[in-house]
Amino acid sequence: MAPNNTPEEKYDYEYFNVTFPAEYVAHVEINRPDKLNAFVEVMWLNLSKIFTRLSTSPSVRAIILTGAGDRAFTAGLDVKAASQGLLTQQGGAELDGARKANNLRRHIIEFQDCITAVEKCEKPVVCVYHGVSYGLAVDLGLACDIRVAASDTTFAVKEVDIGIAADVGTLSRLPKLISSNSFVKEICLTARLFSANEALTHGLVSSLKPSKQEAVQEGLKIAKLIAEKSPVAVLGTKHILNYSRDHGVDEGLKYTAVWNSGMLQSRDVGDAVLSGLEKRKPVFSKL
Amino acid sequence: MAPNNTPEEKYDYEYFNVTFPAEYVAHVEINRPDKLNAFVEVMWLNLSKIFTRLSTSPSVRAIILTGAGDRAFTAGLDVKAASQGLLTQQGGAELDGARKANNLRRHIIEFQDCITAVEKCEKPVVCVYHGVSYGLAVDLGLACDIRVAASDTTFAVKEVDIGIAADVGTLSRLPKLISSNSFVKEICLTARLFSANEALTHGLVSSLKPSKQEAVQEGLKIAKLIAEKSPVAVLGTKHILNYSRDHGVDEGLKYTAVWNSGMLQSRDVGDAVLSGLEKRKPVFSKL
Amino acid sequence: MAPNNTPEEKYDYEYFNVTFPAEYVAHVEINRPDKLNAFVEVMWLNLSKIFTRLSTSPSVRAIILTGAGDRAFTAGLDVKAASQGLLTQQGGAELDGARKANNLRRHIIEFQDCITAVEKCEKPVVCVYHGVSYGLAVDLGLACDIRVAASDTTFAVKEVDIGIAADVGTLSRLPKLISSNSFVKEICLTARLFSANEALTHGLVSSLKPSKQEAVQEGLKIAKLIAEKSPVAVLGTKHILNYSRDHGVDEGLKYTAVWNSGMLQSRDVGDAVLSGLEKRKPVFSKL
Amino acid sequence: MAPNNTPEEKYDYEYFNVTFPAEYVAHVEINRPDKLNAFVEVMWLNLSKIFTRLSTSPSVRAIILTGAGDRAFTAGLDVKAASQGLLTQQGGAELDGARKANNLRRHIIEFQDCITAVEKCEKPVVCVYHGVSYGLAVDLGLACDIRVAASDTTFAVKEVDIGIAADVGTLSRLPKLISSNSFVKEICLTARLFSANEALTHGLVSSLKPSKQEAVQEGLKIAKLIAEKSPVAVLGTKHILNYSRDHGVDEGLKYTAVWNSGMLQSRDVGDAVLSGLEKRKPVFSKL
Amino acid sequence: MAPNNTPEEKYDYEYFNVTFPAEYVAHVEINRPDKLNAFVEVMWLNLSKIFTRLSTSPSVRAIILTGAGDRAFTAGLDVKAASQGLLTQQGGAELDGARKANNLRRHIIEFQDCITAVEKCEKPVVCVYHGVSYGLAVDLGLACDIRVAASDTTFAVKEVDIGIAADVGTLSRLPKLISSNSFVKEICLTARLFSANEALTHGLVSSLKPSKQEAVQEGLKIAKLIAEKSPVAVLGTKHILNYSRDHGVDEGLKYTAVWNSGMLQSRDVGDAVLSGLEKRKPVFSKL
Amino acid sequence: MAPNNTPEEKYDYEYFNVTFPAEYVAHVEINRPDKLNAFVEVMWLNLSKIFTRLSTSPSVRAIILTGAGDRAFTAGLDVKAASQGLLTQQGGAELDGARKANNLRRHIIEFQDCITAVEKCEKPVVCVYHGVSYGLAVDLGLACDIRVAASDTTFAVKEVDIGIAADVGTLSRLPKLISSNSFVKEICLTARLFSANEALTHGLVSSLKPSKQEAVQEGLKIAKLIAEKSPVAVLGTKHILNYSRDHGVDEGLKYTAVWNSGMLQSRDVGDAVLSGLEKRKPVFSKL
Repeated sequence: MAPNNTPEEKYDYEYFNVTFPAEYVAHVEINRPDKLNAFVEVMWLNLSKIFTRLSTSPSVRAIILTGAGDRAFTAGLDVKAASQGLLTQQGGAELDGARKANNLRRHIIEFQDCITAVEKCEKPVVCVYHGVSYGLAVDLGLACDIRVAASDTTFAVKEVDIGIAADVGTLSRLPKLISSNSFVKEICLTARLFSANEALTHGLVSSLKPSKQEAVQEGLKIAKLIAEKSPVAVLGTKHILNYSRDHGVDEGLKYTAVWNSGMLQSRDVGDAVLSGLEKRKPVFSKL
Repeated sequence: MAPNNTPEEKYDYEYFNVTFPAEYVAHVEINRPDKLNAFVEVMWLNLSKIFTRLSTSPSVRAIILTGAGDRAFTAGLDVKAASQGLLTQQGGAELDGARKANNLRRHIIEFQDCITAVEKCEKPVVCVYHGVSYGLAVDLGLACDIRVAASDTTFAVKEVDIGIAADVGTLSRLPKLISSNSFVKEICLTARLFSANEALTHGLVSSLKPSKQEAVQEGLKIAKLIAEKSPVAVLGTKHILNYSRDHGVDEGLKYTAVWNSGMLQSRDVGDAVLSGLEKRKPVFSKL
Repeated sequence: MAPNNTPEEKYDYEYFNVTFPAEYVAHVEINRPDKLNAFVEVMWLNLSKIFTRLSTSPSVRAIILTGAGDRAFTAGLDVKAASQGLLTQQGGAELDGARKANNLRRHIIEFQDCITAVEKCEKPVVCVYHGVSYGLAVDLGLACDIRVAASDTTFAVKEVDIGIAADVGTLSRLPKLISSNSFVKEICLTARLFSANEALTHGLVSSLKPSKQEAVQEGLKIAKLIAEKSPVAVLGTKHILNYSRDHGVDEGLKYTAVWNSGMLQSRDVGDAVLSGLEKRKPVFSKL
Repeated sequence: MAPNNTPEEKYDYEYFNVTFPAEYVAHVEINRPDKLNAFVEVMWLNLSKIFTRLSTSPSVRAIILTGAGDRAFTAGLDVKAASQGLLTQQGGAELDGARKANNLRRHIIEFQDCITAVEKCEKPVVCVYHGVSYGLAVDLGLACDIRVAASDTTFAVKEVDIGIAADVGTLSRLPKLISSNSFVKEICLTARLFSANEALTHGLVSSLKPSKQEAVQEGLKIAKLIAEKSPVAVLGTKHILNYSRDHGVDEGLKYTAVWNSGMLQSRDVGDAVLSGLEKRKPVFSKL
Repeated sequence: MAPNNTPEEKYDYEYFNVTFPAEYVAHVEINRPDKLNAFVEVMWLNLSKIFTRLSTSPSVRAIILTGAGDRAFTAGLDVKAASQGLLTQQGGAELDGARKANNLRRHIIEFQDCITAVEKCEKPVVCVYHGVSYGLAVDLGLACDIRVAASDTTFAVKEVDIGIAADVGTLSRLPKLISSNSFVKEICLTARLFSANEALTHGLVSSLKPSKQEAVQEGLKIAKLIAEKSPVAVLGTKHILNYSRDHGVDEGLKYTAVWNSGMLQSRDVGDAVLSGLEKRKPVFSKL
Repeated sequence: MAPNNTPEEKYDYEYFNVTFPAEYVAHVEINRPDKLNAFVEVMWLNLSKIFTRLSTSPSVRAIILTGAGDRAFTAGLDVKAASQGLLTQQGGAELDGARKANNLRRHIIEFQDCITAVEKCEKPVVCVYHGVSYGLAVDLGLACDIRVAASDTTFAVKEVDIGIAADVGTLSRLPKLISSNSFVKEICLTARLFSANEALTHGLVSSLKPSKQEAVQEGLKIAKLIAEKSPVAVLGTKHILNYSRDHGVDEGLKYTAVWNSGMLQSRDVGDAVLSGLEKRKPVFSKL
């Protein structure tokens, strides 16, 4: 491992492995394979902590997110834990509907914020899907920037099957991130399984690989490529693309101009141009 | 027909057949086949009435919309009626440009509201295209949630051919619902015909079937599948997906949290989990 | 050349050829082929002047934009000129960071406005890509309405390679104009080349032709087709589609109603209907 | 009464008097004085019907809204009826929280739409307050355009006193329509009474008169003055001011330009200028 | 002190006193009087922690915020600490402008989030101004809900005097919260002192009292009054008023309907109505 | 006059005097007093040119705008010229309603852009009203930042009197810039005159002076005060206040953070702090 991305302190979080497979690249692995990587509460809390740290770590410029084991990226919420949690979150039976509603709202927002921590992470995140990728798998991948998949991946937006309108991101992000609203509505309203090929066709993932191993390699390759670029340019590009997704073009342009008024005062431009003339890879200083 | 979706009163509206082919499923058929199902004013008024009723009918959880006859879903506006209507709507020749403009605005908004009644219908609507599907056919399908087509379907956004910028929904919804703005601009600016295959490629429809009959069966299959799910979850999913289409992700997430603060207090969650454990289909109470 | 689109005065702008190959059709050619049509500052200033004039010229109803020579639509910014410009734009070394930021913001907005002049041009613009199409090539094409490409086109969003988050339109428009956010993020964050086929798959272009010549013919064909339609309807269709891209559906519908309250008072509707009955092409008066 | 504003058919709605005290002026009086004009459901349904009719009546150019009797404009919701209604609206005790929530949402939106009918009425509405003006009195007045008050008026935003966050308009409109957010929060969170003088100071009303009679005369005077102006200009002014309240300045300007592109083609401009030269009141044709 | 608002654990935060002067009322006092309550970094971090805890404490329904000592609510940032902080936040001299910009952005957002914690606190906050109230005093008060002042208060938006555009809330909130944009611009662009009377006239505060002591009593009186109301209704009222400040009326109404669909299922409505009939104060259960 | 604000070239524009009465202060005087400073087209074109130049002139940090002569700031549009202009702008009688609408829209936007040039001017503008201040006087003042008035000023929003909904800014800006929507609606719908005192009460102006001369002195005093402050801070403060007027608080905060990430890298902060310690006025370098 290159000194450049030896983190100052160990990343030690239950149900996650965090490693540094290449210079400036972090690898976050969901690690509860005996339960198909299904999520219990501590997991989304840890996920949020990990990505919040990586966001400002100068040793990290790109991240991949994968699931441990052969069978699943994640099967989604641990249903048993979730249905108990739903009751707990509402509070006791003595509460009226309004008080239950308020408790639920607080908990949903807390849960959403954990997933959104991945989107807010300043560094790009490449999600690598394989195997069972249901429910929260989709929420989580949509909060990442780039999605690739093994061809054995099966996806589903499962929530209507358990009586819930998905609320940690799928319904908010899907209509913005992939093509064909007709397809979006179909998979969300029927909860049917869909294949890696369908995911590719409709743009949920941008490439397929024959196996999990190759998909992870592809994810790593993309992350390494990003990590070689100017960290100032990469951070700005992620930030502005997310801003533009949610604003009109005029707003996007003005915001970009203000953003770049500070960000163009970067040595990276000179470093990049010079190394281009000298036919070598540029070396950018830490962010 | 199951007692569960025998509507309380008959749906008796000129130019439309409304039937109930399966439990909780309604079938609305545009019925003016001798004129290629072209629309005259009474038709969009009736369309609005039908979908407004279905929206809150406890006997209905999913709807399919089709066109009668072999030749056309609909050829769009009845041009002869429409060009007369345009004159009528402006008012007499003695009016000045401003007064004509005000009359036209009132009429356009009234017309738009009729088509938007399909979008506002709380229950998902599956549109099944076949044959000639021009002009209003596209406006109408875009107000539905899921679109499937027979492979003989030919589409066109015809309005520039008659000197009009389409104003009952196509121009507002197309840039949000399908991929490739370049394709959207091309079909809207040239009024050229495009095929079912192009519609599939660009995500206007999410599946093709070889014949009208098979397309209708597919639409019915999807509607039945939706009708088996928790009606609370389905209604919320449609509602939030439409909200998210028009808002940024942060707004979407907050709205979802508020929505679900009430909607998670549903017996459907328990019913779904229990039936899952018991390996049987859940039965959800009426909405 | 038909008298109808002989412009009143010559279009004489350095690095651009402007011709009128068909009735109501203008052809703007970027003309610096020895430098792969790379842009220096005078070029975007001229581009803006040309499209601002074409916008209100009654002799023009559709425009195609191409690059001279066999090798490139445009290789993007002239890097040498650009890196000098960046220094100039910041102002001298005696300035503090804030004053440099203010200078940069002014210059970025001025540059953006030049590219946006293509989007604001009232008449539709068809962009024909071929060969090297990097950086500004993408910004520029996205400000056009319809994009077609020769199959030899190679695209790249190059900015992260020179330490910059793209700021003249790509990051603001891409998330709105093409499908698959995963693909958008990948090409913007890695700066990798992508092929004409990928551009087609993801909807950046709506058709491919085997050669530059055929692609230009296709662009011309589309422009001619548009130029035959009602200019009132075409102008409104472009305007409303752009508005709708940036607003929710409700806003889009209301705006359309107000727009059409004036625009339906057009003789084009009658002209179109009459010529339809008489089985001949309609002739529309100038706009 | 001038022939110009004899309505075609009588306005006959329970709990309301509708008269036409001057040319082009309508007077809507809430008429349940023995109950302090407190609202039961039929009243807001009728209110909506009345204003929807007045909106497009060519005999009406301005409207005043008052309450019958000496004691109250309106005491707000009829609490007894409202608390029964709240139970009814939720549906029976056998319903779960989600189903109750859905029923409540439908009913709130229906109720809101009735009040918003006053805002959507194309013609300006002058609200004249006197005496007890609680709860719905504020919701209703805020949906009007101009508010005047008798000096004996006492206002209150009462909802927190009965366990409810006000939901038919006060909380949505107050932060936009009057000054001092601190005052807005105070009256809404404490439900305290506030005087006509406070209402004047904070801009809720724009003038005070010593008695109900004089306040009604003032309202009528304003309505008559408006009714003498160009109906095209008045309708546009109300419409654009409401639009601008909810949009940024850039959006407001563009919308105004599109609106006026149709609306300046009015004979009223010539009529107004000519009558100005001839030193007489202009006579504008009906809208 | 009533058992109802004995907090579970002590609130022990440097530079702040937190007490519970009445049932369900918390009192937060800024406590660095020897430095005119000027803020150093630990103070805004503590402020955020305090209000985040109070937000969900069932023992608290309303809060007052005051400054210790006779001379100042707060003189704003501790300038010495702040100018050192500014250098620290940028990072070392070896950083380029872009890296400094990124560091500054992270720090500003962190600082803003601390102040916004007061706005996000679910319970209403009454700010009581006295004496010197400069810079951060205004930012902070604007994040509260209701503002009252002693008549000796002097205000200033000081930032242009130290070369900064205010960035922790004043510039974002002032144009929305008080009347007269001309006054807002004047005080922000000139940094001139303005009096308690001007603050009252322009709605920055909603009442004045002759002394600090009386102003605190007034603040406490308002907080007690709020604490007696239904906590469900109060929380909803604050939440929706803040939402409405930032959204158009249509959006506000729809959001309110969804919010209340859960929140009207409250026992508080029945409790309030019943106690009204029984002429006694209602007792509401904890939130 | 100090060398610091001797402009490089003379400002020589018909109907305007541009002088430099104090260091870094420009004075723009509308100069057509024999016609009550009524505007003809060349005037708004010149106005735009002047403010666009002042916007980036390093010799200017604040501007006052006044009207020549004793009788009027401006009586608004020159009605005779305007009514001829309206006809010209529509184009000849042979045009249909749609073509006229398009011509009108182009002209309105061009006119609006000229007035908005004052708002877009990077430097603050103080408007000094006196005497007749009708129609365009209000549009123009609202595009300025601070408004003061002589007590003899009479205002009117005159447009409904000539059959027009005001379209160069009053209707878009008034609902955002002053308190009391009821007052806004009243003056816009009735076109009645209102006094300087009413303008003060409702926040249209922030101070009154007994005579034109004293009002101009007050405007000059404010402008000088602003011109002494950090030009980086002043420019940012104007820019962000305008942004915040049109966006929600969350958006405003994020934008401010990005803006200040560049703008806090300013020597002005150090210059201001140092001069504070040394008890002297800071001298800031040019922008």
